[in-house]
Amino acid sequence: MRDVQNQLDHRNIEIDKVGIRGLKYPIVVRDRRHGTQHTVATVNMYVSLPQEFKGTHMSRFIEILNEYRGDITLGSISGILESMKQRFRAQSAHLEMGFPYFVEKEAPVTRAPSLMEYGCCFLGSHRDNVDLRVGVEVPVTTLCPCSKEISRWGAHNQRGRVKVMVRFRHFFWIEDLIRLVESSASSEVYALLKRADERYVTEQAYQRPMFVEDVVREVALKLMADPNFTWFSVEVENFESIHNHNAYAFIERAMAEGPPSGHGGAPGGG
Amino acid sequence: MRDVQNQLDHRNIEIDKVGIRGLKYPIVVRDRRHGTQHTVATVNMYVSLPQEFKGTHMSRFIEILNEYRGDITLGSISGILESMKQRFRAQSAHLEMGFPYFVEKEAPVTRAPSLMEYGCCFLGSHRDNVDLRVGVEVPVTTLCPCSKEISRWGAHNQRGRVKVMVRFRHFFWIEDLIRLVESSASSEVYALLKRADERYVTEQAYQRPMFVEDVVREVALKLMADPNFTWFSVEVENFESIHNHNAYAFIERAMAEGPPSGHGGAPGGG
Amino acid sequence: MRDVQNQLDHRNIEIDKVGIRGLKYPIVVRDRRHGTQHTVATVNMYVSLPQEFKGTHMSRFIEILNEYRGDITLGSISGILESMKQRFRAQSAHLEMGFPYFVEKEAPVTRAPSLMEYGCCFLGSHRDNVDLRVGVEVPVTTLCPCSKEISRWGAHNQRGRVKVMVRFRHFFWIEDLIRLVESSASSEVYALLKRADERYVTEQAYQRPMFVEDVVREVALKLMADPNFTWFSVEVENFESIHNHNAYAFIERAMAEGPPSGHGGAPGGG
Amino acid sequence: MRDVQNQLDHRNIEIDKVGIRGLKYPIVVRDRRHGTQHTVATVNMYVSLPQEFKGTHMSRFIEILNEYRGDITLGSISGILESMKQRFRAQSAHLEMGFPYFVEKEAPVTRAPSLMEYGCCFLGSHRDNVDLRVGVEVPVTTLCPCSKEISRWGAHNQRGRVKVMVRFRHFFWIEDLIRLVESSASSEVYALLKRADERYVTEQAYQRPMFVEDVVREVALKLMADPNFTWFSVEVENFESIHNHNAYAFIERAMAEGPPSGHGGAPGGG
Repeated sequence: MRDVQNQLDHRNIEIDKVGIRGLKYPIVVRDRRHGTQHTVATVNMYVSLPQEFKGTHMSRFIEILNEYRGDITLGSISGILESMKQRFRAQSAHLEMGFPYFVEKEAPVTRAPSLMEYGCCFLGSHRDNVDLRVGVEVPVTTLCPCSKEISRWGAHNQRGRVKVMVRFRHFFWIEDLIRLVESSASSEVYALLKRADERYVTEQAYQRPMFVEDVVREVALKLMADPNFTWFSVEVENFESIHNHNAYAFIERAMAEGPPSGHGGAPGGG
Repeated sequence: MRDVQNQLDHRNIEIDKVGIRGLKYPIVVRDRRHGTQHTVATVNMYVSLPQEFKGTHMSRFIEILNEYRGDITLGSISGILESMKQRFRAQSAHLEMGFPYFVEKEAPVTRAPSLMEYGCCFLGSHRDNVDLRVGVEVPVTTLCPCSKEISRWGAHNQRGRVKVMVRFRHFFWIEDLIRLVESSASSEVYALLKRADERYVTEQAYQRPMFVEDVVREVALKLMADPNFTWFSVEVENFESIHNHNAYAFIERAMAEGPPSGHGGAPGGG
Repeated sequence: MRDVQNQLDHRNIEIDKVGIRGLKYPIVVRDRRHGTQHTVATVNMYVSLPQEFKGTHMSRFIEILNEYRGDITLGSISGILESMKQRFRAQSAHLEMGFPYFVEKEAPVTRAPSLMEYGCCFLGSHRDNVDLRVGVEVPVTTLCPCSKEISRWGAHNQRGRVKVMVRFRHFFWIEDLIRLVESSASSEVYALLKRADERYVTEQAYQRPMFVEDVVREVALKLMADPNFTWFSVEVENFESIHNHNAYAFIERAMAEGPPSGHGGAPGGG
Repeated sequence: MRDVQNQLDHRNIEIDKVGIRGLKYPIVVRDRRHGTQHTVATVNMYVSLPQEFKGTHMSRFIEILNEYRGDITLGSISGILESMKQRFRAQSAHLEMGFPYFVEKEAPVTRAPSLMEYGCCFLGSHRDNVDLRVGVEVPVTTLCPCSKEISRWGAHNQRGRVKVMVRFRHFFWIEDLIRLVESSASSEVYALLKRADERYVTEQAYQRPMFVEDVVREVALKLMADPNFTWFSVEVENFESIHNHNAYAFIERAMAEGPPSGHGGAPGGG
């Protein structure tokens, strides 16, 4: 059978990224408490395609993934990217994985345990060096400082969602990045709250009113203060309880040149 | 060319519904304030298929829609359903349209005007009689009675979404159904609120604490009290500000046998 | 602290369903090949609320789920529903879980293995008896018989999605329900196909042209022929390659009165 | 009432973007055939916030939008961005609008007319200069060259989606950008096809097999050949009929420095 993909292409245009998108795949990630955690990822894999080739053998992406099956952690991304570059003879390779990650939390007063889900992602690229980014989405409570200030009682509050992406020097736990975010809002969010806990989070949020602007700055300040992070972006979106649209704030900063993520110690948190 | 769809089918199975789904189509609906309103619908159209036919000529759904183009309102649904039954020689026909609908609202104190969007739908079925349902999705604010009661200050509140579906005897305005829902929550929601308005909705919500259970019952009570409605379902979903999951309540009731919607006066609200 | 939820309600309206929605939870389901499979569910839990009570203690849903943690399979749903009825003193209880489920498949010619993901759901209700439904979403290829018939070469084909829900008498494997669907389309779908496999599925689809109407009937015929199933619904949706809207077909049938699902042998497949 | 947003902030961090997100708004865009077209946009509006201010008066975004109501076209974006910079005394302003856009198409043989929907977006930023990007999402048919080559009959094909974003010098019609994309795939897609048309598109697709790699290159070539475009990105995603994941290709190129979009003639196409 003729290999159509390997035919010469005369249009003289390199393709930046070509690959597969939206593949669901079970993975096992590192978990500080239990060692490992089973979850399900949505995976995208791309390589660059030189101008002279007509196409890409898409099945090889799946084959590479299958070879790493059971060992797809943040620590193995560099190896997967290296395999992709070699197998496709590509200048650059990209791997993106998003997955739910569960952390056991205790309610603030009764200590009742429950599981909270956080959306996580690993984004790896490899041209000359491996570049890794880790992302996490953390639900929080925000209580509006303006509403509190101007009203005789109450203050509107709502669920917000903070998305953080970081580049880093060394291993770190996703759990710590989640904590950093959860400590930067009016209150954290729980799956299980008994009445004493509900009272606690209600009163705490009222005493720590924060705009999206406050949350994005608090998270940014803490990320800038940690020398392990060399770059970050933070995005806060509030599902305003008094509007049908959302409030939004965004900060992106590069703190250092340094070696890109993926070098030095095995990066972790997954 | 052979007409494959018209071939005999020997499997002896009638198909309940066959048709098209997810078609985007611009429509004009009735608007109490401005006469008409342009919007964009997502349309599903189905007919039943007798056991003896292999297939359906799907292009006819589009042709029927095109014939009614510019006049696709709630009032024309019966006619469209009739056309579908005739053209397909079908026992039953179904038409579903969902679309955003805008209403101009004034802020509660400053009277600053703005546009609020509500998700609406028209669902029509025709077997022996035409059966019409109208639905609307209304965002509201809910403030937790338990949180208010047990806390020294503040109370968690959040955006909630109320979905109402009704069967009815006579014409009514969607605007009135929206009002019915908006008056049944801790506060209504606005696109534009100046500070005096924000104070007003904050204080009002604090003085009208309501669970999802309260909202679903209030809406149900008002719908039962209106003799125009012969059946309804109400669904309330709160995007809890202290959890990452939602609170939910649902009531469905048939109040009367009466003639199904679509008979009597030209039904309206769109 | 006052128990607001336990207060008397004077509106005299029973609520059909009240509970939590959209909770993410890690579960372990039964897997024919490996014994068990870890996956992540989206969970809804509801109970009915008598007219005399103002509210529901939502945290109890999470507590019940936590008690069954590590043992949330189709076999344990009856027990969870029973716990819900007792703990809430409710007339009826409802549990809905949707989750991705992976099955290892071999490519049709090269036998290259890969993982396919299928969307599954367990829906349980308990009023007087337990009623269980199992659902599965299966991607398939469909090739249009009309396009093939009228064209000199080629035929349009596309990815389709078949959703099946069943009520059943005894244990069955989800894997078998998936097979039943995959054998009822123009071709099945794979995560990994080498060139010899791609040729095979291309030619097979061309030789087995099927409308959505054909697929829905084939699946229905097979389900009706299996005495284990007492009720089903089948929904086929084709992401037409020549349109930007979808083709759709739906059949629902009750085959027998029999005992509802959830009685008899431990129901399975998850 | 105290103006909390205007308070001094001591954290010394400028916020890149702060504003509103997900607001639905009815707009009127330019339409080559009918002059204007009513549609519904999803709107995001952001400004930068200097380090010394605590917050943003979010209601001003809505007020600005209301002032331009009825005249929100691509041509008015520069003015809206200018208003945003002034009203917020911001260094930079951003406006994003996504909306469905309808074009009347004729079937290729019978000339039967129907409406096709395309997703469009206008993205405007203003720091020192106005930078405008116009985007369009076009559904197409792609037929796999490898599948055709290796199979004795047939070839797998599917719906694909091409997303193009451009920066430009002068006014252009969205309709022309859509045509450019539709002429770069195996076949274009229609809402209404009679049997003679279905035969035509089936045979045409079979004679013009194209990978995602081919489509992305064809579109790129045509965009590079048009001196009106100074930058573009093209993204092609195929909903593979033989897989449950998608094939993907991406190219981004800057062709010229030139003046950024938004200067020179009133930019158009909407």
